[in-house]
Amino acid sequence: MKPKISLITLGVNDLERATRFYGEGLGLPKYDFEGEGIAFFSLEGTWLALYPREELAKDIGLADATQGSFSGVTLAHNVATKAEVDDVLDQAVAAGAKLVKPAQEAFWGGYSGYFQDPEGHYWEVAYNPYQDLT
Amino acid sequence: MKPKISLITLGVNDLERATRFYGEGLGLPKYDFEGEGIAFFSLEGTWLALYPREELAKDIGLADATQGSFSGVTLAHNVATKAEVDDVLDQAVAAGAKLVKPAQEAFWGGYSGYFQDPEGHYWEVAYNPYQDLT
Repeated sequence: MKPKISLITLGVNDLERATRFYGEGLGLPKYDFEGEGIAFFSLEGTWLALYPREELAKDIGLADATQGSFSGVTLAHNVATKAEVDDVLDQAVAAGAKLVKPAQEAFWGGYSGYFQDPEGHYWEVAYNPYQDLT
Repeated sequence: MKPKISLITLGVNDLERATRFYGEGLGLPKYDFEGEGIAFFSLEGTWLALYPREELAKDIGLADATQGSFSGVTLAHNVATKAEVDDVLDQAVAAGAKLVKPAQEAFWGGYSGYFQDPEGHYWEVAYNPYQDLT
C-alpha cells in the first residue's frame, strides 16, 4: 500500500452550505465536475470531498448515519487497478481490519470496497477509471 | 489559506494496537519521534496521526469524547507563523465557522486553535516550530 490518503470525505447535512464554506469561505479550489450531489476540492496532496452524511453512510453499507457510531468522515486510498483494490483490502484484513464492504463495481463507475480500522474508522479502497487520485 | 490538509488525526482507544495496524499492518512509514502518547506517519502530501480519543477531545477543549457528537477525527491546517494561525481562524469564522478554541500556546510548544466547520467537523490551525508541515 502506497503511503497516501487520496481523499478525505466529510459527511454533511447541507451540501450547499458546506460547499460555500470551503469554496468561497476558505477559498479552497473547487473541482469542476459534471455530477451533482457531491463536491470535490483539489488540495495539495489530498483531495477533499463533501458528500451528504446519509449517502456516505449508505455507500459504506450502513443502514443510516447513526449506525455503528459512524463518525461522518471517511478516508480513501486510491489505486491504479481493480486488482490492487482487492490486494489492499486483503492486506488490511490480514492486519486486523474488518471488511465492511467487499470490493465491487461502484454506482459511479469505479470499483471499490470499505474496511474499518481496529478503532472503527472507515477507509474506502478505490479504483477510479476517470480520475487518477493515486 | 493554502489548499492543503497538513495532518489528519484519528482518535483511538488503543494507541499501540492502532500504531501496529497502520505501521506493521498497512506498512505506512512511522515517523520517529521522541515523544510518547502519539504516533505520526509521514504520508505523501498529508501526515496521519493517531492520538488517544479522549486526549484529542480535550485538546479541542471538549469535556470528553462524547461531547458535541465528536467524530473522533480532526483535520489540521499548518501555517508558517503564529500570525497566520490567527489569520486563518479569523477567515474561517468570517466564513461561518465556530471558533471552539482561540489560538494559544500549545502544550507541545506550538501555537494553535480549533474551529468547527458549519457541519461540526473540527479543524486545528497550527504553527509548529519543530516540524514544517505547511
